[in-house]
Amino acid sequence: MTDFSTPLTHISSRDNPLIKDLRRLSQDSAAYRKQGKVWLEGDHLCRAALAKGLKPELAIFSESFWPQAPREWTLCAAKNIVITDALLPEISGLESPARMGFVMALPESALLNPNAPSLILDRVQDAGNVGSMLRSAAAFGFAQVIALKGTAALWSPKVLRAGMGAHFALKLIEGAAPADLAALAMPILVTSSHMGQFVHQQTLPWPCAWAMGHEGQGVGDALMALSSVKVRIDQPGGEESLNVAAAAAICLFASASTQK
Amino acid sequence: MTDFSTPLTHISSRDNPLIKDLRRLSQDSAAYRKQGKVWLEGDHLCRAALAKGLKPELAIFSESFWPQAPREWTLCAAKNIVITDALLPEISGLESPARMGFVMALPESALLNPNAPSLILDRVQDAGNVGSMLRSAAAFGFAQVIALKGTAALWSPKVLRAGMGAHFALKLIEGAAPADLAALAMPILVTSSHMGQFVHQQTLPWPCAWAMGHEGQGVGDALMALSSVKVRIDQPGGEESLNVAAAAAICLFASASTQK
Repeated sequence: MTDFSTPLTHISSRDNPLIKDLRRLSQDSAAYRKQGKVWLEGDHLCRAALAKGLKPELAIFSESFWPQAPREWTLCAAKNIVITDALLPEISGLESPARMGFVMALPESALLNPNAPSLILDRVQDAGNVGSMLRSAAAFGFAQVIALKGTAALWSPKVLRAGMGAHFALKLIEGAAPADLAALAMPILVTSSHMGQFVHQQTLPWPCAWAMGHEGQGVGDALMALSSVKVRIDQPGGEESLNVAAAAAICLFASASTQK
Repeated sequence: MTDFSTPLTHISSRDNPLIKDLRRLSQDSAAYRKQGKVWLEGDHLCRAALAKGLKPELAIFSESFWPQAPREWTLCAAKNIVITDALLPEISGLESPARMGFVMALPESALLNPNAPSLILDRVQDAGNVGSMLRSAAAFGFAQVIALKGTAALWSPKVLRAGMGAHFALKLIEGAAPADLAALAMPILVTSSHMGQFVHQQTLPWPCAWAMGHEGQGVGDALMALSSVKVRIDQPGGEESLNVAAAAAICLFASASTQK
């Protein structure tokens, strides 16, 4: 089963520099920016990356899992690393650490494509919300996600986990300023609790860019000023309060299902 | 400012029995079942509970906040408690502990209403997802939420926080079995990736009950067998993968917006 064509290294010390790097990548949401590398923990994320043709720099396996590792995983990386099982919790952000993972180079921040249907994230804080919105964007044909400064780090372990592989299907732009959005050759849409038509009663423009804002404060003034379409989500139950990722799902779906 | 009509107690010891109870309530997701009490931390949840006419047993304030506490909070509970600020982290599930909170009796599990539009949760694991779905249910007129055994504890601190007060607008039923759902006098709807019509291209029944399943496994066989309507969410982006709370938002919204 062992594959000799890919160089193999064993690591058993928690002081090994690679283990130290992985510890930071798995536990510090901004470490990927310093290291320029992303740690994909577990088979779901790794499969999703491979399916999109990405090539990992390192494939990392626990000693106990290594003998069962599928060939597609042992052949895909420039280098295989086998670590003692006791080191797994050191390099994991999960309660039950995965038995394998990939290290890949952080994809370069994409240049803003003025014509790509887009999701704009304005200081959205919660990693679960951001990951859920990346999945919705990928599902509904919004190929570009533009995160304004102050949004949760898109390639952090928690957002990666919640994104379930959507990262690899999207152009991701981080650290944008509201002024950058002027380059978009399409209307920017925002939700409002008191302005505009109901989202299910109007024809939505396509292509378009949907903007979703901070969980407490919503979309900021600068972005609001750039938006040409305000829509409301009718809430007949009377509770004027949707989770931001729930609102995003409704809006992105509405665009996707009315444009045909 | 001090209000003498409500009995007031000072607590400064972390060994005080109330502090011990609150520590469990704030940090153990199932403690409310043993204690029969719920800890509402922070002003947003407390306001939402008061707005629905709920009466807290205890109102708890930090020493530094007590002088500024609004009268509506100092007059609403059977008893006020002022604790030293150093105890706040002991009784908080937040990174920045709130300066006040209420203890209220756990509402009795509602009896299943056969005629109430319902959301059924089948072993949904993530507290953020459950809270988001409670908000969507309340927003879109699904007044009853039925959680099957294995679903995250609805009144746990994390679900309460993610629910943002939706708990107080809903009939919540915990620990149900699939067989209990036979009592519902309405069709049960599920989403499927490969069966049924697209959700935006059909007339949905009203009232109805939407079933949402486990993040990895989806809706279980027993519940699937009870469901009479399967619908698909069209995902033209090609990624066949939505977060469960995002899917719920789309489905509940579709029901609410087509029934009029």
